[in-house]
Amino acid sequence: MALEVVDINCDMGEAFGRWRVGDTNDDVLMGLISSANIATGFHAGDPNLMDHTVRTAVQHGVGIGAHPGYDDLQGFGRRKINGTARELVNDMVYQVGALREFARRHGASLQHVKPHGALYMEMAINPELAQIFVQYMRTVAPSSYVLCMAGSATERAAIEAGQPVVREFYADRDYDESGSIVFTRDVGRPDAAAIARKVVRACTHGTVTTVTGKDIDIPFESICFHSDTLGALDIVRQMREALVAEGIRIAPLSEIIK
Amino acid sequence: MALEVVDINCDMGEAFGRWRVGDTNDDVLMGLISSANIATGFHAGDPNLMDHTVRTAVQHGVGIGAHPGYDDLQGFGRRKINGTARELVNDMVYQVGALREFARRHGASLQHVKPHGALYMEMAINPELAQIFVQYMRTVAPSSYVLCMAGSATERAAIEAGQPVVREFYADRDYDESGSIVFTRDVGRPDAAAIARKVVRACTHGTVTTVTGKDIDIPFESICFHSDTLGALDIVRQMREALVAEGIRIAPLSEIIK
Amino acid sequence: MALEVVDINCDMGEAFGRWRVGDTNDDVLMGLISSANIATGFHAGDPNLMDHTVRTAVQHGVGIGAHPGYDDLQGFGRRKINGTARELVNDMVYQVGALREFARRHGASLQHVKPHGALYMEMAINPELAQIFVQYMRTVAPSSYVLCMAGSATERAAIEAGQPVVREFYADRDYDESGSIVFTRDVGRPDAAAIARKVVRACTHGTVTTVTGKDIDIPFESICFHSDTLGALDIVRQMREALVAEGIRIAPLSEIIK
Amino acid sequence: MALEVVDINCDMGEAFGRWRVGDTNDDVLMGLISSANIATGFHAGDPNLMDHTVRTAVQHGVGIGAHPGYDDLQGFGRRKINGTARELVNDMVYQVGALREFARRHGASLQHVKPHGALYMEMAINPELAQIFVQYMRTVAPSSYVLCMAGSATERAAIEAGQPVVREFYADRDYDESGSIVFTRDVGRPDAAAIARKVVRACTHGTVTTVTGKDIDIPFESICFHSDTLGALDIVRQMREALVAEGIRIAPLSEIIK
Repeated sequence: MALEVVDINCDMGEAFGRWRVGDTNDDVLMGLISSANIATGFHAGDPNLMDHTVRTAVQHGVGIGAHPGYDDLQGFGRRKINGTARELVNDMVYQVGALREFARRHGASLQHVKPHGALYMEMAINPELAQIFVQYMRTVAPSSYVLCMAGSATERAAIEAGQPVVREFYADRDYDESGSIVFTRDVGRPDAAAIARKVVRACTHGTVTTVTGKDIDIPFESICFHSDTLGALDIVRQMREALVAEGIRIAPLSEIIK
Repeated sequence: MALEVVDINCDMGEAFGRWRVGDTNDDVLMGLISSANIATGFHAGDPNLMDHTVRTAVQHGVGIGAHPGYDDLQGFGRRKINGTARELVNDMVYQVGALREFARRHGASLQHVKPHGALYMEMAINPELAQIFVQYMRTVAPSSYVLCMAGSATERAAIEAGQPVVREFYADRDYDESGSIVFTRDVGRPDAAAIARKVVRACTHGTVTTVTGKDIDIPFESICFHSDTLGALDIVRQMREALVAEGIRIAPLSEIIK
Repeated sequence: MALEVVDINCDMGEAFGRWRVGDTNDDVLMGLISSANIATGFHAGDPNLMDHTVRTAVQHGVGIGAHPGYDDLQGFGRRKINGTARELVNDMVYQVGALREFARRHGASLQHVKPHGALYMEMAINPELAQIFVQYMRTVAPSSYVLCMAGSATERAAIEAGQPVVREFYADRDYDESGSIVFTRDVGRPDAAAIARKVVRACTHGTVTTVTGKDIDIPFESICFHSDTLGALDIVRQMREALVAEGIRIAPLSEIIK
Repeated sequence: MALEVVDINCDMGEAFGRWRVGDTNDDVLMGLISSANIATGFHAGDPNLMDHTVRTAVQHGVGIGAHPGYDDLQGFGRRKINGTARELVNDMVYQVGALREFARRHGASLQHVKPHGALYMEMAINPELAQIFVQYMRTVAPSSYVLCMAGSATERAAIEAGQPVVREFYADRDYDESGSIVFTRDVGRPDAAAIARKVVRACTHGTVTTVTGKDIDIPFESICFHSDTLGALDIVRQMREALVAEGIRIAPLSEIIK
């Protein structure tokens, strides 16, 4: 099950007002990825930045994704909020609609939706939340992809409802034996060459080595990395080079999955 | 130029979280109007309320409008914020997109956009803001109406660009000789019968008497009243009755203007 | 252990901007209570309302308390946010300081602090949060009371640190056998006379009947009721009358505990 | 009127959540200034950052100032909001109180208050706003300084009311002939040596050269520079060195004015 083509997705537009995170440069990164998860104002992002980020993505032919999060600017959407499933999906409808309007303004459509941070993790284990969310996607965006972890409640809900779904491989995160990523506050500055090798192996053999040293199967269609990981630019450049050297093409989701 | 058919629009969904304003009852009002200006979260409204309000409007066959405002919950969008025209339009794109997504979720489309409060007044006198806003509407919603005052910069920008435009008659506000409404913090509890007579006369003769006692021409296609005016329910009921007695039909904008 | 004097506390200033909840009238209620828990802007309240509420409390000789909550206007502070204990206490320092400045402006001091809603419940079961909070109180407000449930982590932390502490009796809530209140979204319109009898018995005998029909001991120095309970005005009036008839005096905390 | 001692003030803690501005390093800057204007959460800053910044200032013996702004995170308090004077002062009471609570927590008192950005400029020309603000300071902080421009409404109100007042000299801004600073969105990377010379001359001769080449008198007790000016660290270091070489001592306001 070697991949001939793969998507690279990255969170984009996660600044706010005049503030930035670290030394990330979205405008450069945009030329190196194929799908952008664009922050929608609740955990990061603001209307001016959303407009700019969508325009830049369109210019680079990058797939436009909405990246809705918990309503928590201060905590960057990393703190769970105990809302009901229905409330949380309403919050997502609001954010996805806002992002989609900017896409429409720049002549693009909504390629995918990927919840952010604690909301992504919550949906992975909360079937009610996943189902109400997928039901909303079926109604208003039946051909947009849902990005998720393999084995998550999100994946199950999407498959069951017939919503296009995409599994991610986390280039800059470690795996445990269950196939989940190991949460760490600080990933330091990872070895870009090692990441490139890990990604190529995942694409060609479908396996990854866990933190306990075991090999596990890991099915995916898209590679995720984080723009705030130290050395992100170097990571994505080496990763792309290694993939291309292996004959693997990088393309937005819409060109990969039919 | 007597009107045979007229639209009645009203601001809806202007609560927030568990808070309400006065004793307004949107669910009842919805059965008495033909177009709803639904608050989009910046000056009032939240995702749960937007979902509810859009659903209710659809059930009553009421036209769905986005009602974007300044980003000022505390001041209810009545305090001007000195943003650039480009920033303010980005804020509106965000809000309109959010509302439109709820409309889509409930099988409806965006009938119109009407800016709220201080933003409505600012656009009326700011040609740059009006033009950038209308340009956005041309791109993403070429058949949705812009609601405005006759003679405003908003109207001029819409006409010039070819965007469908609708002028309002303010049932529960007074006019000065320039055709502008006289701003008052507190309109008290107006005389519903007097309002009904004033509205019927405006529809049949196209005129209104100003605060100085002069009659002026007032062109419009939609009647606006405010749900937070004391006795709003009584006002709209008497107004409807008087219009119907005069043989004037009440219908959403989409049925009035071709 | 019959009480000769008791405090009555109530949440106050829980509106926001131009919005209100139900038909509560804080200005009238203020004349009927002895301690006010004043919302501090995160779950409810805004600077204008805080100024007004503090001024009104001072005029009535009501004890001023800060009522800090989770940073969640939309959810009224009823949705838990998974912040760290240190973050949550920083949020409380911010809010308490803001309220205390209005108190100072009106010549009053900070009588007490009572966390709101989900934050109150979280602190009751989270010893780390309770300890960091009490430590802060020891440093900046060593003579202000902490309001809490008997048996909570909050009470234990306060006693251990030597911070003045006050236990509450919930007039308009039901108890289970553990002495905790039974959470209900909707308490309906409770029987004011029954509440008055329940409160008098708690004051004179120190006991309350649980939802399972058993009598338990319930130690307290302050009676809490909610201004958004239907019929709140009637409840507090009957309660006061019954207490006075029994010879029990109502007074702010500062007059009760030495 | 040569100065023997002068204060250096700088805006501090103007980040938010995990976001920062440029490459500023407050922890280093804190060792080079004598007074800190600490952001209070409305235009920048959050409770965690306020706690950290106050603690750092105390460790360095730097005077603690509150730096309240318009309620506009997205616009960084640089967009005027048309609130009433009374509303805007209530917003400042809230913010100053919050900051003062963190000062109290770390054993410090409130040395001064300096409004931020558009609010600073508004107060300079709005006598009603200046008077209500100063009245509040008289009541709750009669010995704390108000920082302002010479000739502003703020200065006049403070002098009239007897509130301690401090005028600023803007090291990294240009002056016009009226003694006002020339507003520029982008000051580029100014020449640190030239700034040092300009500051020394202002301290020793009380004069500055305007953009039109004329020399004007400029009375002040404190030097202000901006941490987000490019090369801020270099600017303050050269400035300090030049002042010390001239025999001018740098000290917090509380040591300068009696």
